[in-house]
Amino acid sequence: MLRLAILISGRGSNLRSILQAIKTRRLVGVEARVVISNNAQAGGIAIAKKFNVATEILTPSGLGGWSFDKKLLSLLEKYTVLPSNGLICLAGYMRILSPKFVERYKMRIVNIHPSLLPSFPGLHAQKQALEYGVKVSGCTIHFVNEGVDSGTILLQQPVRVMDRDSEETLSKRILAQEHKLYPRAIKLIAEKRIEVKGRKAMLI
Amino acid sequence: MLRLAILISGRGSNLRSILQAIKTRRLVGVEARVVISNNAQAGGIAIAKKFNVATEILTPSGLGGWSFDKKLLSLLEKYTVLPSNGLICLAGYMRILSPKFVERYKMRIVNIHPSLLPSFPGLHAQKQALEYGVKVSGCTIHFVNEGVDSGTILLQQPVRVMDRDSEETLSKRILAQEHKLYPRAIKLIAEKRIEVKGRKAMLI
Repeated sequence: MLRLAILISGRGSNLRSILQAIKTRRLVGVEARVVISNNAQAGGIAIAKKFNVATEILTPSGLGGWSFDKKLLSLLEKYTVLPSNGLICLAGYMRILSPKFVERYKMRIVNIHPSLLPSFPGLHAQKQALEYGVKVSGCTIHFVNEGVDSGTILLQQPVRVMDRDSEETLSKRILAQEHKLYPRAIKLIAEKRIEVKGRKAMLI
Repeated sequence: MLRLAILISGRGSNLRSILQAIKTRRLVGVEARVVISNNAQAGGIAIAKKFNVATEILTPSGLGGWSFDKKLLSLLEKYTVLPSNGLICLAGYMRILSPKFVERYKMRIVNIHPSLLPSFPGLHAQKQALEYGVKVSGCTIHFVNEGVDSGTILLQQPVRVMDRDSEETLSKRILAQEHKLYPRAIKLIAEKRIEVKGRKAMLI
């Protein structure tokens, strides 16, 4: 069983798509052990509860990167989501993980980003895409490394940008693809079908 | 009639796709006035001749940007491909146009690039994409501005990157899409269906 810890900060729509995929057995060999939010108001907490998944709230209390992430490590140990058996899924988690934490869970942390990386990393990727004037954007699942949205790419899905798109309409169209992509990526990892060589993640 | 000058440096496969589209009347209201190569050995010269299009060879003879481009301007005037009635299509043209030239033909120069810009501008875009490890690349038609591959985007087509792709196989798959995209872009310009506002090119 691959043990998931899903980290959120907001409404948790990708969280829902993952939990739904597990519940409906599109995603098997995977167990959602805990949902951790750094925001007590996150809508995703209610979603986790609805799916009977344990929740933890870890509010910053002014703690910097590693001090905060040490508490995160303790929680992961509490739920035995370890580098050896676990996968950390960032799903709208708005904190940057400290290098020490990333090193500990090397290649065991994945994130989803609403653009075709390396275009438009960082915040407001959909707005960046609209302002640049691209005709195709999309979403990317990647392993988390010490940089921002710069880790090895697992999966990408292109999404057309329409002339009339607003940030909202484009975000919505991309989000629909994110919800399909994230469970697919977790499935590939659970089935040990991903082989990583340098920057390339290949299917085996 | 939109008058085309097509600038090449090499084999001219995009040139062929444009001339073929004109010949088979998939592309109407467009006349290929001249093919200009900065390389006397370019394979595209024979293609132009096969389609009965005038050819000109403009070899650098050590001339810098604007000195060279002044000769280019003379040629365009000779064939009456002017900013008012013409379009300059870069099709594997390996020189960078000088800012003065670009200013003269503002929004009347288009280029094709084998990536989904803004990812992987510059040379060897397909190799860059493979080395980064993206799962989706593609091609972009854009207006040429004073920067490198940074002008307003007209059309983009995504192309899947396969695990086993070499630079050659990926380039080939992208090229097949380039050959469809370039005639489409020229058609939209000939039909005056492109409205540009800032960085956005919209269909009207």
